[in-house]
Amino acid sequence: LKTDFLFNASFPDLKKLTDRKSTVILTDEHVFDAHAAKFRGWNSIVLKAGEEYKIQETADAVIRQLIQLEADRNTFLVGAGGGVITDLTGYIASIYMRGLRFGLIPSTILAMADAAIGGKNGVDVGVYKNLVGTVRQPSFVLYDLDLLNSLPLGEWENGFAEIIKHACIKDARMFHQLEKTDLLSYQSDRELLASLIRRNATIKLNVVRADEFEKAARKLLNFGHTLGHALENQYEVTHGQAISIGMSFACLVSREWFGFSKAGRVEELLTRYGLPVRARFNRDKVWEVLKLDKKRSGKAMDFVLLNDIGKGFIHRVPLERLKKMFYKF
Amino acid sequence: LKTDFLFNASFPDLKKLTDRKSTVILTDEHVFDAHAAKFRGWNSIVLKAGEEYKIQETADAVIRQLIQLEADRNTFLVGAGGGVITDLTGYIASIYMRGLRFGLIPSTILAMADAAIGGKNGVDVGVYKNLVGTVRQPSFVLYDLDLLNSLPLGEWENGFAEIIKHACIKDARMFHQLEKTDLLSYQSDRELLASLIRRNATIKLNVVRADEFEKAARKLLNFGHTLGHALENQYEVTHGQAISIGMSFACLVSREWFGFSKAGRVEELLTRYGLPVRARFNRDKVWEVLKLDKKRSGKAMDFVLLNDIGKGFIHRVPLERLKKMFYKF
Repeated sequence: LKTDFLFNASFPDLKKLTDRKSTVILTDEHVFDAHAAKFRGWNSIVLKAGEEYKIQETADAVIRQLIQLEADRNTFLVGAGGGVITDLTGYIASIYMRGLRFGLIPSTILAMADAAIGGKNGVDVGVYKNLVGTVRQPSFVLYDLDLLNSLPLGEWENGFAEIIKHACIKDARMFHQLEKTDLLSYQSDRELLASLIRRNATIKLNVVRADEFEKAARKLLNFGHTLGHALENQYEVTHGQAISIGMSFACLVSREWFGFSKAGRVEELLTRYGLPVRARFNRDKVWEVLKLDKKRSGKAMDFVLLNDIGKGFIHRVPLERLKKMFYKF
Repeated sequence: LKTDFLFNASFPDLKKLTDRKSTVILTDEHVFDAHAAKFRGWNSIVLKAGEEYKIQETADAVIRQLIQLEADRNTFLVGAGGGVITDLTGYIASIYMRGLRFGLIPSTILAMADAAIGGKNGVDVGVYKNLVGTVRQPSFVLYDLDLLNSLPLGEWENGFAEIIKHACIKDARMFHQLEKTDLLSYQSDRELLASLIRRNATIKLNVVRADEFEKAARKLLNFGHTLGHALENQYEVTHGQAISIGMSFACLVSREWFGFSKAGRVEELLTRYGLPVRARFNRDKVWEVLKLDKKRSGKAMDFVLLNDIGKGFIHRVPLERLKKMFYKF
């Protein structure tokens, strides 16, 4: 990966990384309104906020604006925002004039710990999450923790769902640390938070470095995401809530099939960080989406399970067998 | 390039390259109607024919159909048609589930000699040709010259524009051969045509191999395309007609600035193959599009000129200087 990770940086450092004239920043109205001064003097395209705008039509509209700004192949895109903005930015940078360089300034815990890292991008198509997209690496990811000052509580919980995911599949020590701490401590201790974010970025980065195009090990990062994605665009849940329910399901499958004994502890930790572990939903309706997950090929799917805390593994499972477990959940 | 070029093949060979169950063919109604028997037994998506459908909305519609067909990451796309179909196929294969494998079966002279080779793909955005797209190489290009049996005359001329382009920039011997022959001879002599197509595919392939992502030498292939693209989506001209006018303009620039002495012979050859070398059009309106060409960066543009027949070169020219020449053309 040729990405520079600039931890301990601040938004104004952007001017050292790219020149104003050839740069266009994509952001959303929340980030722009909360940090208007930081955007002064930069060409900016401000989008409506929300996962429902992570669609091709938004990309089309941005492309029309780039044409109006006379953006060319030397134009540098910067995505400043949460996961929706970082995903859209990478996608548009992949397809505008067959590819622009781009950088990211994540503004949420989720984007800092996960979405801004690894180059996956995309848009949703109907209920299908990230059905369209590419893999393209940013030139840099700039971390400015001051951007978190405007973050609502729900967004903190949202981000901690991915942090707990990393702990489950890769890092038992971080799992224990999370068990002993709580959201309020991370919110009030900037140093503690910075070190947690950096640790998570490093976990993800190491997985991506080993397997950029998700032939094998990168699939681990989908822990909780198969059911999560199927729920997310059909019900009023955040990404974090959806994958929390998905992780809980994956823990139960791990217990039933492989004797995983710590499903209860995972559920307790999710609950500790304000995340749901069960939900009422229409099994038939969710299964119809789940079975088309990108990890499927033919009649089977690569599903991520746990042997132990910190030990995720990939298990290829026939759809019919998974379906039976799903209807029991 | 990891592409297999299957010259002297035939459409039914497709079954040796990919299995029916996991394959989806994209084609257009003209190709499908003219060769219906060849498509029997294959999943096919049949699009309306024409450059005006080479747009994001068509890609969106195909993606919805792929979802309905439950296409997954193992799905293999095949584009069977002219340049519009091969470009759309490569583009959709680049973005559906972050990338599918694909192969091409070009059905026109233009696609066989040019469009199906080299991995550039994309869609038009308003008047801007291929403004959105990627570079992604097909697994194979299968040549079945029987597909040309249904090709109308205008499409032959269209394809010969790219063949003459290759001769101008890279192959003086082929230029002389074209001067001594004519369209009717190529239409009636299958062996002569097969060897011409293969020669052109090889010229393009060698350029692409040397510079897949168009950092330098690949720009040569844009000879005639800067003005050509600006004309194409604003006037009722084919791609071949548009780039023929563009080549004629580039020859005049070559003469004015570098003493190129054979502009007349290039124009005669274009005319011999039924192509226009001048046209009446609105300079202001065309310049507004031309100046946003993808080869532009900042206030200058890489423009392709000729030193001699078979000797194209790239010249970086300030937009203002090019504009003056353009208004004289």
